[in-house]
Amino acid sequence: MHVSAVNSQGHFSSEYNTTMSSAQKPIEPSPLISSQHLDKDGQCTFGFTINWKKFSDSTAVFTSQCFAGAGGEEVLQTAWLLWEKVDSLPSNWKTTRTGCNIFTQMG
Amino acid sequence: MHVSAVNSQGHFSSEYNTTMSSAQKPIEPSPLISSQHLDKDGQCTFGFTINWKKFSDSTAVFTSQCFAGAGGEEVLQTAWLLWEKVDSLPSNWKTTRTGCNIFTQMG
Amino acid sequence: MHVSAVNSQGHFSSEYNTTMSSAQKPIEPSPLISSQHLDKDGQCTFGFTINWKKFSDSTAVFTSQCFAGAGGEEVLQTAWLLWEKVDSLPSNWKTTRTGCNIFTQMG
Amino acid sequence: MHVSAVNSQGHFSSEYNTTMSSAQKPIEPSPLISSQHLDKDGQCTFGFTINWKKFSDSTAVFTSQCFAGAGGEEVLQTAWLLWEKVDSLPSNWKTTRTGCNIFTQMG
Repeated sequence: MHVSAVNSQGHFSSEYNTTMSSAQKPIEPSPLISSQHLDKDGQCTFGFTINWKKFSDSTAVFTSQCFAGAGGEEVLQTAWLLWEKVDSLPSNWKTTRTGCNIFTQMG
Repeated sequence: MHVSAVNSQGHFSSEYNTTMSSAQKPIEPSPLISSQHLDKDGQCTFGFTINWKKFSDSTAVFTSQCFAGAGGEEVLQTAWLLWEKVDSLPSNWKTTRTGCNIFTQMG
Repeated sequence: MHVSAVNSQGHFSSEYNTTMSSAQKPIEPSPLISSQHLDKDGQCTFGFTINWKKFSDSTAVFTSQCFAGAGGEEVLQTAWLLWEKVDSLPSNWKTTRTGCNIFTQMG
Repeated sequence: MHVSAVNSQGHFSSEYNTTMSSAQKPIEPSPLISSQHLDKDGQCTFGFTINWKKFSDSTAVFTSQCFAGAGGEEVLQTAWLLWEKVDSLPSNWKTTRTGCNIFTQMG
């Protein structure tokens, strides 16, 4: 994940490399746009949208909070929704997958 | 919801007026940033993040697809996650609310 | 949905006919087991598990609360998770779909 | 978690000790009823409902699949919904929390 500078509104953009895909096309880095709180305690909540447009017509959203782990390292707890496009309203029930991921600081 | 022009990347920003809040402070319009697909069939998936920063330290993310309703009107089916800030990692289990909303075109 | 009597523990069993399936086999009524609170205000929360075993290796769980609608009729708001079996742990991310359904009293 | 024998339908009941609660009353073991598939590969999906009735008017549902971990141990991946009772329909948006838990075999 390569992150650009956060602006004064708390908005930033980035690229996201997933390892998870059910699309037919090869995976490519995808644009991510995010908005975060700028609380001074460093435990801000934030959210971001990933538009997998280069290889899929799906959209994912993540919501997250940054925590301090046992050794002082940053731990991002996240929950996400992945919307897979369907053809029409009666198929709406199967559009949305959900899950949780934990990201920890490397190096 | 007041939406700015969608740029060529499919990104747009907006303001969102919620009627739902468990925060103590009065509700105010909140900045929303979004990314959407630009498929020609008009049934794009998209996602957006709402940063309730003016009155809350929470963040919400929505994921959605636009459908044609029975009378030809636009119907947005959405699923959302709302992350409420907690003090530390052991409270992480209670951060995330989820739900669904349907938005239909007015006028 | 055909419901057996609720026992004194708040447990009951039933059958559920879905109209939504991504399985290959034809849909059949599936056993449902449930546990509910027995609050006197009639607005109990409850949950149930549906084992689609006759035509699928998936499992669904619903959680719900009963409300009084505008005309006094019962309205069940529900949220659900549907777990579709995968072969191994690396595919775990795609197991879980989520959604909401509203059930209203008929007749 | 203390589990009774699984019957031929795949139903079993149990008790669940949570360490997570936002209720005012002290936590007590709570009845759990479950339904699971009985696939021969040992990687069955299952679901269960927990009725926190001794100390809360909430209901939780879990959906899960059993996997083999790297060392051959059982790993239960779960996703859950927790419904907290509200007074009336306009508060429905805040009823449902979601999350994921991983349970690994001990001893």
